[in-house]
Amino acid sequence: MSNPRRPPIVGRFMQEEVALASRNSGMPLEALRYDVTPAGLHYLLVHFDIPAADPGWKLSIGGQVSNSRALSVDEVKALPQKTLRVTLECAGNGRGQMSPRYPSMPWLEEGVSTAEWTGTPLAALLAAAKVDPGAKEIIFRGTDRGIDRGVDHDYARSLSVAEAMRPDVLVVHSMNGQPLLPQHGAPLRLVVPGWYGMASVKWLARIEATDVPFDGVQQVGSYHFRTQAGEAGVPCTYIRVNSLMAPPGIPDFFTRRRIVAPGRVNLTGRAWSGDGVPINRVEVSIDGQWRDAKLDPVAGPWAWRGWSCEWEAVPGEVVLACRATDAKGNVQPDEPVPDVTGFGNNSIHRVAVTVTGEVG
Amino acid sequence: MSNPRRPPIVGRFMQEEVALASRNSGMPLEALRYDVTPAGLHYLLVHFDIPAADPGWKLSIGGQVSNSRALSVDEVKALPQKTLRVTLECAGNGRGQMSPRYPSMPWLEEGVSTAEWTGTPLAALLAAAKVDPGAKEIIFRGTDRGIDRGVDHDYARSLSVAEAMRPDVLVVHSMNGQPLLPQHGAPLRLVVPGWYGMASVKWLARIEATDVPFDGVQQVGSYHFRTQAGEAGVPCTYIRVNSLMAPPGIPDFFTRRRIVAPGRVNLTGRAWSGDGVPINRVEVSIDGQWRDAKLDPVAGPWAWRGWSCEWEAVPGEVVLACRATDAKGNVQPDEPVPDVTGFGNNSIHRVAVTVTGEVG
Repeated sequence: MSNPRRPPIVGRFMQEEVALASRNSGMPLEALRYDVTPAGLHYLLVHFDIPAADPGWKLSIGGQVSNSRALSVDEVKALPQKTLRVTLECAGNGRGQMSPRYPSMPWLEEGVSTAEWTGTPLAALLAAAKVDPGAKEIIFRGTDRGIDRGVDHDYARSLSVAEAMRPDVLVVHSMNGQPLLPQHGAPLRLVVPGWYGMASVKWLARIEATDVPFDGVQQVGSYHFRTQAGEAGVPCTYIRVNSLMAPPGIPDFFTRRRIVAPGRVNLTGRAWSGDGVPINRVEVSIDGQWRDAKLDPVAGPWAWRGWSCEWEAVPGEVVLACRATDAKGNVQPDEPVPDVTGFGNNSIHRVAVTVTGEVG
Repeated sequence: MSNPRRPPIVGRFMQEEVALASRNSGMPLEALRYDVTPAGLHYLLVHFDIPAADPGWKLSIGGQVSNSRALSVDEVKALPQKTLRVTLECAGNGRGQMSPRYPSMPWLEEGVSTAEWTGTPLAALLAAAKVDPGAKEIIFRGTDRGIDRGVDHDYARSLSVAEAMRPDVLVVHSMNGQPLLPQHGAPLRLVVPGWYGMASVKWLARIEATDVPFDGVQQVGSYHFRTQAGEAGVPCTYIRVNSLMAPPGIPDFFTRRRIVAPGRVNLTGRAWSGDGVPINRVEVSIDGQWRDAKLDPVAGPWAWRGWSCEWEAVPGEVVLACRATDAKGNVQPDEPVPDVTGFGNNSIHRVAVTVTGEVG
């Protein structure tokens, strides 16, 4: 099952990739201007179909626990609440820029966003359920169902008990102060700060403690870094250090090439890293010459950090780029780290710009 | 300018098309279950960048009027209000299924949605501005700016004075009971019921009466039906009769092929037509055998109409399809009507399904 069934391709995109891109919305990069991504602009990856609402929704907690339970949404909301600003990124972000490329959701760079999530710490739910001391993992099951790698399943992922007990892992019912939208996991979802988005299971219906490593399709068949097809690989976990630039000037409709008037331009963007350590450096390159950007204040351990850099634009063709470094010294690579199924591409973001006096 | 500068292509998709599909979100077809499309699931076509909010936003009304004005958003909200349920569809919906294909936003079928729009009738604003009797058109200018067909411009469209004075053309500030989201045109936009989406100018900043036919890029360079490159063509106006089926069963992640268990299946979907006349027939085809679907009540002159059809699924491979007819006798064609730039594809929606006892 670890062997991808879709051979890599080069060049133009398959209709299946376009269908996935049309269903799964990215965050347009001008939305990097918002500290918190507005409703409907947060990126979205829905593996199967968005489930229909169920007014009698229950979240069951069972498996290796001594106090199994089934809570209504109101019962979850009545527990102690916490609101966290969290940047989520799809593990496949940047896949569409890799060559050869694994045929899947062809994110170019827009599979990242930040929201304010409100819910109850998972740790409190697990404590109330009294997880057996021998349990090793907690499994999270959504109600979104489909076929992947030939297997019919409800989307499900697991975390180690230690990860699941982290105080910032939340069972969430609200996003940006509003009830979860259907496409973001209503009525309840998991949010695992710092991890790539696949861990934050939407439409969360069942939580199960187990002492057997979870072998679900989305746990062992997908979401691994692999340099060669068939190898076991390394699980995708924390988001790699990354950054993006809000494209300056105005776009050409089709090519999205940026057109900028000469003069002073305030380049801005965001940088993030999933290890819970701050971004402590962002550099901006103007045609290969790197300089340090100014960093905005840190907005909590899990949210992206704003940056800005003034640039005196002179007429001509120029390539801009940005590169972040986190407090552990992780820095973005120049080129994608090869990966068979296109995960974890955090290579530096480049923006081609035409500076011309013909726009004012 | 009427000659498209991007030659048609066949087969796989360009990265530029994928970039447009990633920015511009479609409505996932399972969202056909909602009478009114929830926030963030309404399809979106943003030609250039989503403009940043401007707290001092004014809507100016000028040109050939005797009482030119500039209204704040609050002043617009203080005028008589109307809420309408309106189905909008992108004129380019279905372009990605055509062959050869014009390189642009490669909608497959998901560029359609329905919202409840609240605002003030444009006719009242025009009456207060006292449009000169000699004026022929009303121009609507947004603040979204970019380059298309080599021309730097703010997005703008016009309507004849007669169309603009229709009582259901609204200057809108709310969508589904909430203030407009940034990406849907905040703080003010036009909604022209019955017309393809390009007429409903977002981020509306200026309304101008004129006695000269408007020759803006988006009016004369784009949004025309043309059977051959270079011809003047026929302007896109009212939405052609169309329908979609909510794909039954569960999907395969990559191919989106549908897998259905044997037994009774309630097929459902929506049908619409922009002429303000009701849909009065929807047919469903099971492997080429057509039968009449049951129609839901009409939900006003501008909203799609639900339909359903029971199907006894037996194991095997089957192609489902749906086809709508409106009260004027317009019916969807079997195949796309050829169009150089891929507008107005209302050919029947087909869904390939595997019926198997292996899913329960």
